[in-house]
Amino acid sequence: MAAEIAEQPGALQRLLDDGISAVREVADRVARRRPRFVLLTARGTSDHAALYAKYLIEITLGLPAGLASPSTLTTYGSRPDLSDVLWIAVSQSGGSPDLVDSTTAARSCGALTMAVTNASESPLAQACELNLDVLAGRERAVAATKSYTNQLLALYLLIDLWGGGDAGAAQPLPGLAADVLQKDAGAEVAPRYRFVERLVVTARGYAYATAREAALKMMETSYLSAHAFSGADLMHGPLAMIDADRPVIAVVPRGLGGTALAPVLERLRDRNADLLIVGDLQAAPWAAAAASLPLTDERVGPVLQILPLQQMAHAMAVARRYDPDAPRGLNKITETR
Amino acid sequence: MAAEIAEQPGALQRLLDDGISAVREVADRVARRRPRFVLLTARGTSDHAALYAKYLIEITLGLPAGLASPSTLTTYGSRPDLSDVLWIAVSQSGGSPDLVDSTTAARSCGALTMAVTNASESPLAQACELNLDVLAGRERAVAATKSYTNQLLALYLLIDLWGGGDAGAAQPLPGLAADVLQKDAGAEVAPRYRFVERLVVTARGYAYATAREAALKMMETSYLSAHAFSGADLMHGPLAMIDADRPVIAVVPRGLGGTALAPVLERLRDRNADLLIVGDLQAAPWAAAAASLPLTDERVGPVLQILPLQQMAHAMAVARRYDPDAPRGLNKITETR
Repeated sequence: MAAEIAEQPGALQRLLDDGISAVREVADRVARRRPRFVLLTARGTSDHAALYAKYLIEITLGLPAGLASPSTLTTYGSRPDLSDVLWIAVSQSGGSPDLVDSTTAARSCGALTMAVTNASESPLAQACELNLDVLAGRERAVAATKSYTNQLLALYLLIDLWGGGDAGAAQPLPGLAADVLQKDAGAEVAPRYRFVERLVVTARGYAYATAREAALKMMETSYLSAHAFSGADLMHGPLAMIDADRPVIAVVPRGLGGTALAPVLERLRDRNADLLIVGDLQAAPWAAAAASLPLTDERVGPVLQILPLQQMAHAMAVARRYDPDAPRGLNKITETR
Repeated sequence: MAAEIAEQPGALQRLLDDGISAVREVADRVARRRPRFVLLTARGTSDHAALYAKYLIEITLGLPAGLASPSTLTTYGSRPDLSDVLWIAVSQSGGSPDLVDSTTAARSCGALTMAVTNASESPLAQACELNLDVLAGRERAVAATKSYTNQLLALYLLIDLWGGGDAGAAQPLPGLAADVLQKDAGAEVAPRYRFVERLVVTARGYAYATAREAALKMMETSYLSAHAFSGADLMHGPLAMIDADRPVIAVVPRGLGGTALAPVLERLRDRNADLLIVGDLQAAPWAAAAASLPLTDERVGPVLQILPLQQMAHAMAVARRYDPDAPRGLNKITETR
């Protein structure tokens, strides 16, 4: 896991250098088909990349988008009319049977299907009309890291090029990712959390995907109860859980998503929360701990935001004497139907 | 909260008796407009009713549906093309500013807008072209109970009538709800959980909404770390958290959703999980505790499934000497933007 975390700047650069022409070709084909609606489907870490793509599609392309519930097509056998729909299935391995089955069903219902995988020969890639290879290189740790950041980047490139952009915001990412990893701020703050059993991660907008992925990394590797909430959802009930003994991690980029989190940070302060702020430290100078991030275009911020949180999850697992490379009860390819 | 839990059979009957003609009128108007996609938006408990409706719409009407991210319209100011889109905003109070703002924006983007509220004079109801009153009666406890089950019923009636059904599956619900509440199985099993701090709730299909709502009720009233996962998502990472000391609640109706959970229950048994089964006890005879439910059409099962879990959340809060009527840090109407 540590090695794959460290490989991320190189993997991002590879996608920018070697993958961009393939992404452009897929983006052109999608743009020509002019889909009216986008459905995304994924599980686990890949679901967080799909959530990020949902925000990008809605905000930058002005297309309504939703996360599909695969069981409606598989378990319940529904056959919706998916003409004019772009169906994007995101998966590291491309091997999960329920994604292959629901994607095959979506294609037979008229959807334009696209696989976003790290395995271009996989069953999922073969089931789709379009295929985006995220080029992360072989990933062996059960807890996905480099495949996630390359999924984010591939989806950003796809959506920006589809909308007529030049993907310029992505160019600094490999260098910035190397800077962030070198600071090792995640591992530095991890000791504070050695004995934590319950934790909440919050964010809004694009960064909400980061909150979800950070919580999953900690659950997978350190068996914490790590909850992710959008800032707005946190206020609708779960805020009651927060007290001084339940640490909160807030992902606060500079930009609209970070600004929208300001009232949530105020309520957390009222509740005497122990806060780790990831991003713009000025947003909450009262925070107990911090991991700063370089300024980026908010749209690509999630590629950097997750890095200190991956380092933190890894460091927490090691400190607890768990093996982050072999979480109990899990295999690399999850066979759900 | 206890009084409002007990009022549910009467509230359901009121909606069936006094509300059905209004629901039919709204359903007819929606059917005539023939929307191509449905977007649902809500927060907190109402979000779980929206999730239930998403499954119903996809499975029984064959229409693609998604849960909207309100911040894309509000914080980020996107203006997607929502012609042919039905936008359903679900809210007990109809008073949350971000729902009103995002719904107003959706209407200006061409969506057919519908409010599903317990307050037909509310700002949200006034912002919408169509308006469904769930007729739960005034709800005072912060933890929503009767407004949730009436939201579920109102959405079932709407979707079934819209699709040309006769809403027959709903008729037995008030009587069955009274039977379930009288058994008080939820309160009966609650003592086992007196000292639990972390808990997982799982289900698939329609019942997944129940798992999400049960987890929220426990977070709101007993400040537990209660995680809800669809059975498939649980296998993709979070399963690593499960051991004998982290109890699991599985909502397992008889029907396709329950059957699809069978492999998940097997994996939980392998992990030596402490299981409470709600629904079909035959699905896991090895479970440590159980709350059985009467047989119903799976589509309306969620109306009954949540009842013992509401009772359980209430009993757990009382046992911990918390006041379930006044969760710390929360107000009845949540003002998020």
